[in-house]
Amino acid sequence: MSIDITALCQQARLASRQLAQLSEREKNAVLQAMAQALRTEQASILAANALDMAAAVEKQLAPAMQDRLLLTAERLEQLALAVEHIAALPDPVGQIRQLAPRPNGIQVGRMRIPLGVIAMIYEARPNVTADAGALCLKAGNAVILRGGREALHSSLAIAAVLQRCLQDAGIHPAAITVLPEPDRELLLQLLQQQQYVDLVIPRGGEGLIRFVSEHSRIPVIQHYKGICHLFVDKAADLNKALALLLNGKTQRPGVCNALETLLVHREIATTFLPLASQVLAEKNVQVYACPASLPAFEGGLPATPEQYDTEYLALALSVKVVDSFAAAVAHIEQHSSGHTEVICTQDISRSQRFLQQVNSAVVMVNASSRFSDGGELGLGAEIGISTSKLHAYGPMGLEALTTEKYIVIGDGQVRS
Amino acid sequence: MSIDITALCQQARLASRQLAQLSEREKNAVLQAMAQALRTEQASILAANALDMAAAVEKQLAPAMQDRLLLTAERLEQLALAVEHIAALPDPVGQIRQLAPRPNGIQVGRMRIPLGVIAMIYEARPNVTADAGALCLKAGNAVILRGGREALHSSLAIAAVLQRCLQDAGIHPAAITVLPEPDRELLLQLLQQQQYVDLVIPRGGEGLIRFVSEHSRIPVIQHYKGICHLFVDKAADLNKALALLLNGKTQRPGVCNALETLLVHREIATTFLPLASQVLAEKNVQVYACPASLPAFEGGLPATPEQYDTEYLALALSVKVVDSFAAAVAHIEQHSSGHTEVICTQDISRSQRFLQQVNSAVVMVNASSRFSDGGELGLGAEIGISTSKLHAYGPMGLEALTTEKYIVIGDGQVRS
Repeated sequence: MSIDITALCQQARLASRQLAQLSEREKNAVLQAMAQALRTEQASILAANALDMAAAVEKQLAPAMQDRLLLTAERLEQLALAVEHIAALPDPVGQIRQLAPRPNGIQVGRMRIPLGVIAMIYEARPNVTADAGALCLKAGNAVILRGGREALHSSLAIAAVLQRCLQDAGIHPAAITVLPEPDRELLLQLLQQQQYVDLVIPRGGEGLIRFVSEHSRIPVIQHYKGICHLFVDKAADLNKALALLLNGKTQRPGVCNALETLLVHREIATTFLPLASQVLAEKNVQVYACPASLPAFEGGLPATPEQYDTEYLALALSVKVVDSFAAAVAHIEQHSSGHTEVICTQDISRSQRFLQQVNSAVVMVNASSRFSDGGELGLGAEIGISTSKLHAYGPMGLEALTTEKYIVIGDGQVRS
Repeated sequence: MSIDITALCQQARLASRQLAQLSEREKNAVLQAMAQALRTEQASILAANALDMAAAVEKQLAPAMQDRLLLTAERLEQLALAVEHIAALPDPVGQIRQLAPRPNGIQVGRMRIPLGVIAMIYEARPNVTADAGALCLKAGNAVILRGGREALHSSLAIAAVLQRCLQDAGIHPAAITVLPEPDRELLLQLLQQQQYVDLVIPRGGEGLIRFVSEHSRIPVIQHYKGICHLFVDKAADLNKALALLLNGKTQRPGVCNALETLLVHREIATTFLPLASQVLAEKNVQVYACPASLPAFEGGLPATPEQYDTEYLALALSVKVVDSFAAAVAHIEQHSSGHTEVICTQDISRSQRFLQQVNSAVVMVNASSRFSDGGELGLGAEIGISTSKLHAYGPMGLEALTTEKYIVIGDGQVRS
């Protein structure tokens, strides 16, 4: 099969013009229909998923990858609920802010509009096909989905269901397009379509994100690793500190908002480290410690310099004793990936300084790094987490899929 | 001279960390000192400019280019006033919005922060060196300035004055850096420093912007040409329409927010075109007209299809009669460069539809396209006009030089 990527992107651009003009009610109606169709047309999706699963077993994919690939009736119900949830979110498109008169009487304001066409590049997660499709549609954008080859049958089956709903509603079916050939050559061609595509969002491992960033002529929003820090200040409430440490490191160690490094103020180290050692040992966390903290951890290993730049995504933790608040901030500045950092302190001045001086995407006082997530922060849904500062920084919800134009209303004014 | 671009960018990154922590008062004080120094140290700047001017004369640069290059005592005073004006603008950094509690009691909000390090790539305009330097500094960013070779002596002299002010204030001098060698090889190296530079803003001709966009690994904000439309609706007030046409086309034809195309609703064409023809003839505007409008313009020429995609930047205008409101919007959709579009109408419904359906950066009702400018729209100052939708769209002021992080304030909450 030979695919004309340019023609496909042109169709998406056409569809995006229609989507930009839909009312919130029209968008919600088609999203509701999609949720229903994901329920009533389960059979076709599960049959396609069985093909992907059979190939995955034959190729002996890792169990975690097979699990991500697997769809069940229950998981499709979750997906349908997620689409209904997106339908219930407020529509950012059309919102006007700061409309105010200038001295010459013209009214100037800013109106929120869709970005246009978004390309999502992701790995073998068939649920992203529905989830990202629904989020982009709600924000008035067309989306081109390029998922992993292992999930291709599943993604195409889900897209077919969604596209039938689009057609029933009189919406251009290119509003949601799945690339039917997930090879690299086609991906490279897609990344050159800056004339028709406004934004690329890669979701997946560092290799995928780096490949997309290096080859894209279209703006890319990057989500690199999360090396999240917890700094236990000398004025910390130690019970809170232990709770934040335990929750941040062990509640779900395989995700990007889990903790990777514990920094402890020297003045509190002798009190706090033995307590930390105990709770971490109970959860079988392997500790890599600096010379000052190593004696506190039975079974601890000396930390190499590289370990402070390592995202473990596992029950492992780097620990370092720091001499001061400033030393903690300097360590974070040097080693952070710009994702999420936490201070535990009862001192209001240092909490304020931490919020001001640390410029990662999410900066927290006395709260678990695990809250660094679109749902938990109140965005309603999340299409990714940006660790680069342009356009969006941190968890991205519907607003990050839009931009603002200026509107000007005059009565015949001209410039002198 | 061999320049280590990476080291230079690392220094800028270091400086940016200091800048991000300066208070508004500290930033304003150094900006005030810079304005003063631009007055008291005129001699060194004018001497450097004389070198650039002598070379320009020898190379027989175009008169318009020589004029852009020339600095005088009066122009330096204008520059000093512009820097004082920037000092007087409100500081966006540190602003917090939407701070509100989540159901579990954590407070979530967004705090505005500087982008970090910005690279400005521009042509032979020495004033940009002071202007962009001051704007970036006010927003808490370090800036690397790469101007045209023709203005190099002037730019370096201005930068030396600004850097003395930085040093007097205890600010890292790499807060404002002028690339001392404006060759392409060095520019290419600069565009690969995505580890240290957060944003590239090219200002200049289409060739420069395309070169930067094609070679940059750093996000680029593009300002391509302005093909601005005026649509005279059938319900237009014809006096307003004539004023908008005249002001948009002839007040300053060489700039991007000047009009290039006039669209006229068929129902009003026989009344409006003769009036338009008269005022345009008085200003010696060359008209390129569609078959329906050509007879109305004495001396008019038939428009070729390419002319509706042409930015004249001169006393020339494309004219087209359209059958309907929808045809006007469709023409704009096809030919607009995403800059600025104007409708002239007394009909409130069509004015609303125009504001909603046209997604250029600036969309206007009954106002001159010449207002599409940061100063006129109330931004206080302008670092460029973005015609791409990501991060900023339209005139860019201080806010466009910043981003937002999330802040979270809890009392020990963890995720369950």
